Amino acid sequence: MAGIRVAIVGASGYSGEELVRLLLAHPQVEITCVTSRQYAGQPLGKVFPRYMEAPLTFSAPSIDEIAERAEVAFLALPHGVAAEFAVPLLARGVRVIDISADFRLRDTAVYERYYGAAHPAPELLREAVYGLPERYREALRQARLVACAGCYPTSIILPTAPVLAAGLARPGNILAAALSGVSGAGRKVDLEYIFPECNESVRPYKITGHRHLPEIEQELALAAGVPALAMSFLPHLIPVNRGIHSTIVLEAMPGATLEAVEAALHEAYDAEPFVRVLPRGSLADTKHVTLTNRCEIGCAFDSRTGRILLSSAIDNLTKGASGQAVQCMNLLGGLDETTGLR
Amino acid sequence: MAGIRVAIVGASGYSGEELVRLLLAHPQVEITCVTSRQYAGQPLGKVFPRYMEAPLTFSAPSIDEIAERAEVAFLALPHGVAAEFAVPLLARGVRVIDISADFRLRDTAVYERYYGAAHPAPELLREAVYGLPERYREALRQARLVACAGCYPTSIILPTAPVLAAGLARPGNILAAALSGVSGAGRKVDLEYIFPECNESVRPYKITGHRHLPEIEQELALAAGVPALAMSFLPHLIPVNRGIHSTIVLEAMPGATLEAVEAALHEAYDAEPFVRVLPRGSLADTKHVTLTNRCEIGCAFDSRTGRILLSSAIDNLTKGASGQAVQCMNLLGGLDETTGLR
Amino acid sequence: MAGIRVAIVGASGYSGEELVRLLLAHPQVEITCVTSRQYAGQPLGKVFPRYMEAPLTFSAPSIDEIAERAEVAFLALPHGVAAEFAVPLLARGVRVIDISADFRLRDTAVYERYYGAAHPAPELLREAVYGLPERYREALRQARLVACAGCYPTSIILPTAPVLAAGLARPGNILAAALSGVSGAGRKVDLEYIFPECNESVRPYKITGHRHLPEIEQELALAAGVPALAMSFLPHLIPVNRGIHSTIVLEAMPGATLEAVEAALHEAYDAEPFVRVLPRGSLADTKHVTLTNRCEIGCAFDSRTGRILLSSAIDNLTKGASGQAVQCMNLLGGLDETTGLR
Amino acid sequence: MAGIRVAIVGASGYSGEELVRLLLAHPQVEITCVTSRQYAGQPLGKVFPRYMEAPLTFSAPSIDEIAERAEVAFLALPHGVAAEFAVPLLARGVRVIDISADFRLRDTAVYERYYGAAHPAPELLREAVYGLPERYREALRQARLVACAGCYPTSIILPTAPVLAAGLARPGNILAAALSGVSGAGRKVDLEYIFPECNESVRPYKITGHRHLPEIEQELALAAGVPALAMSFLPHLIPVNRGIHSTIVLEAMPGATLEAVEAALHEAYDAEPFVRVLPRGSLADTKHVTLTNRCEIGCAFDSRTGRILLSSAIDNLTKGASGQAVQCMNLLGGLDETTGLR
Repeated sequence: MAGIRVAIVGASGYSGEELVRLLLAHPQVEITCVTSRQYAGQPLGKVFPRYMEAPLTFSAPSIDEIAERAEVAFLALPHGVAAEFAVPLLARGVRVIDISADFRLRDTAVYERYYGAAHPAPELLREAVYGLPERYREALRQARLVACAGCYPTSIILPTAPVLAAGLARPGNILAAALSGVSGAGRKVDLEYIFPECNESVRPYKITGHRHLPEIEQELALAAGVPALAMSFLPHLIPVNRGIHSTIVLEAMPGATLEAVEAALHEAYDAEPFVRVLPRGSLADTKHVTLTNRCEIGCAFDSRTGRILLSSAIDNLTKGASGQAVQCMNLLGGLDETTGLR
Repeated sequence: MAGIRVAIVGASGYSGEELVRLLLAHPQVEITCVTSRQYAGQPLGKVFPRYMEAPLTFSAPSIDEIAERAEVAFLALPHGVAAEFAVPLLARGVRVIDISADFRLRDTAVYERYYGAAHPAPELLREAVYGLPERYREALRQARLVACAGCYPTSIILPTAPVLAAGLARPGNILAAALSGVSGAGRKVDLEYIFPECNESVRPYKITGHRHLPEIEQELALAAGVPALAMSFLPHLIPVNRGIHSTIVLEAMPGATLEAVEAALHEAYDAEPFVRVLPRGSLADTKHVTLTNRCEIGCAFDSRTGRILLSSAIDNLTKGASGQAVQCMNLLGGLDETTGLR
Repeated sequence: MAGIRVAIVGASGYSGEELVRLLLAHPQVEITCVTSRQYAGQPLGKVFPRYMEAPLTFSAPSIDEIAERAEVAFLALPHGVAAEFAVPLLARGVRVIDISADFRLRDTAVYERYYGAAHPAPELLREAVYGLPERYREALRQARLVACAGCYPTSIILPTAPVLAAGLARPGNILAAALSGVSGAGRKVDLEYIFPECNESVRPYKITGHRHLPEIEQELALAAGVPALAMSFLPHLIPVNRGIHSTIVLEAMPGATLEAVEAALHEAYDAEPFVRVLPRGSLADTKHVTLTNRCEIGCAFDSRTGRILLSSAIDNLTKGASGQAVQCMNLLGGLDETTGLR
Repeated sequence: MAGIRVAIVGASGYSGEELVRLLLAHPQVEITCVTSRQYAGQPLGKVFPRYMEAPLTFSAPSIDEIAERAEVAFLALPHGVAAEFAVPLLARGVRVIDISADFRLRDTAVYERYYGAAHPAPELLREAVYGLPERYREALRQARLVACAGCYPTSIILPTAPVLAAGLARPGNILAAALSGVSGAGRKVDLEYIFPECNESVRPYKITGHRHLPEIEQELALAAGVPALAMSFLPHLIPVNRGIHSTIVLEAMPGATLEAVEAALHEAYDAEPFVRVLPRGSLADTKHVTLTNRCEIGCAFDSRTGRILLSSAIDNLTKGASGQAVQCMNLLGGLDETTGLR
């Protein structure tokens, strides 16, 4: 069996590298094209020595080449640029799995407010499926365009949505304090990300108006069955390579109990291959999920304040980006959802 | 001038080491006694090679010896044990600066609930002064017994108290997400604190009922002028040696503004030597305060949710423990408050 | 196919955990027994939450139980203790793959000098095969008892042996400076391994007489074809979780060149699945090999001093311990050598 | 007392920041000028928030301004650029303490070979004094131009020179394996220095021909009393912020003993304020010297190989750069050598 022919567009960042890691080991995929403007012409192993043996060479991104070689294109590109590729690739019949933020928000006005530019391809928004298989599995099987959930959003939506959907918490008073490893900033060469500036440092950033905020709000409003909600999202940068931990605080509805929260989580996730509800008393720890496609969820109930506390951990590059993308590809390719991800 | 003769009781942990660091360099102090049951008879430099040249030897703790040699005793002991020393030392006329939690809570019932034992010396609670100079400066000048503020509480009370005192936030809906370096667990030899278990790991712990919670609630209620309050305190362990960052979320009172919050902070702290209110737009970063006695505070206003966001950073061993203890000693010893701390 | 039934004896340390990781994913193995005195009766997932779903429970180690359940036993035990298991297990027909040092040294006098006790089972030494497949592949296929190469030795023997065997360097003047991550010390709860003692610290240890020294000397003497040699081995502890880097310095024989060194390495390893000779100009970096069974080797020639410089990187827990053990098992079990290790 | 008026030229890197840290606390110095092309016009605290309260603003570097304001100029500039400032400043009567490599090598041919350009100011080489007070104290008191010893060289010359000078080791067979924290690369924004590329990574670099090599060879040859020597210098990058550890291996001369090595080290350093010879059995650990101006030295004797092993630790930014520069300034300014450095 030849497998699905895939292209990785923008393969020289950390999400691209993680796609390479997962797809090289995927038994039903063939990587036919890896692009990088910066490294065009160089073998993949020059940039990622870990994959030196892979017979892949970066090419400059070309719609023609991608369309000829691939059935599915993963876009690991900056927002805005992703749409420039998605439009012609879809027109050429290539299915697109976009890791950027271009097609996650349904409301172009919200996109414009948070990204500072008009949406580059509003006509595709209706068609794009949000790439979070635990919430949109059936739609993903038919999708031509997948807008993979962001890393922070995945870590927050997965634990929170079932609790809201079960009516156990008030949608109007949500807060998420999230901590991310530095690879979450991408393979970005900025002063603030060099080792001596990150190591032995802990710092919040963009605690109002982070670009992942509207995406989280959109999905939690849908889960809660309300038209909209406004929440607090508090990201922090901490000195680890990989991993996001989110602690989510919800105002419990009258009568809500720890048992009910646990029941809602178990009902949502006991059959899920990549979500694990922890035994009572356990909270999530990123070190248990790094390099896996798993989201780990713990919960507690603070009866003194009437608050539900959720704790989740993912690997920002796997379940938070590239692993999720592969999970989506498995769905739309008709494969077992877990192929290549265990 | 001979200087104040001080004893460090329980000097072999990280708070003890930090007291050694600060007091060896203090121009008006003479360390006359360092005790450690475990290392009695060994030179200080055996345990802390950094201070190898200091002519100090650990002795087994003895009330007689401490009382003979010292005017002021710093207690860096486990809770419960600290009180066993404080009572006889005070009786012998030694002033006591306690870094443990024994005398921080005014209500013995709360102590018993959180520490699982009856308070060991309730008769001293009325006299003990909470060791947070920015809030209790005048009382500290006369204190015989100082109950130094805990590390997390310092990082939360300092930014929050002025905002509550100014009536800018509702006392009933406070939340603090705090991140601490591993030295905060003390020099404790437990599996969960060995390097491979902490490095590349992020995890919350005791997100309901942490022992620092009642202390924070007590002080914030006093600041707000309410009899009591219940809040959420979410501690996380992260892989750095030193530093605590706290992000505090408050529900703004109607009419409260970012300007008003900034004004309250500036009014409280512009004359303080060890608190720095950051310029607008800046949030706190632990790397700017490690090895200092400073607390750094940033703030933001989230108009979408009506929340005030505070960000603070301290060194957990300095302003969060031993530096604060020295600051308190300077006050009760009649010295300039900053002596030995710049 | 049911697969080889294996036991992991002493499964609660880091080598044990790594065996669990590899063997759970191994397509031709069934783990039938995991033992731990300390955790007997507890599910594996209690100790290693990452493997929570694995249906395994620790049992107290019992020769009878292991012999009944397993064809192959991996011993991840302290030296001395390993021999106590190996002897009766071999007598019961179980093949033994020992990760400890008990059967690595051929000379019992050397064992006694370095381990401070008479060898516990000298009668087995003649039979034991040194578990380094790149050097002892054929013997391993028939082995009943495998003495897996140590972590430091693997990182030093692999790059050095071919250069000595080719007569390119003098056997009498070898030096290896090696840097190991903290997991190399095992899951050991000692003060020197807690996070704040390791982080931001770099230190050599046992720079004369480390227990891995005689093992390296034995194998390099064999490679060089000399009866014995004495070398310098300089281990350092550095704050990473996983990985060993070794820099080896050899005195070049007259006429030796960089080309000849490269040729010797390529001849030895180009057909090896788990050794990679880097392109000229590249040195090894642990981050490219962690979580793989690969050894990466770079080299340089210092014409000013007439020295050959070798640089190697492995993951101390994979190629340095458990991955190597699985590679050996594949050989003696008649499987493809790379099964479960890619 | 007004104190010495000093300029820090090129103050926005890590050495510059360390100079700021030390000189702000120095009781007999006044910083009158801090220059930075990149940050000219911005307050120092914008770049180094830790020193936000310091009333200093970066200016673009100007010979006139520096010469008017300062008696002593610290040059924390790239090599080549430093000489461009040194020449006119000396002509204007400003004493120059250069942290770059421009005036360290006495032989311009060697400079040209390692730095790839003709020496920019060969006429000053005869006058420049190598800034290692433990070796050139008297000359430094009179120096107009100080060429501060490099970080690696300091960590290697200090332990090795007395052993060579005492005739205990052969000058012809020296090797130093050195490990440096990432701040040693400067505040450089390169892909290889971002956090995810350094953390969990260990790698050697430039193991032949590092630019610090000729400087070490020059000074060790002088110590040994030989015209020249060629040695191996093996630098490695490890994930810590600060600190260099060097392990130096020497071939013992016949009759040399551990006692003799210790005696040579004690004779050289027992009266030195910033060098500490460790008790027998102890090796150096960077965590005991970070943020101090101290070099810690341990030693061992490997009788099996006839090798002397030296272990040293310094803070690369303090004793390895800025602390040393201040120590030199104290000497040439006629101050107590330790002023501001304890």
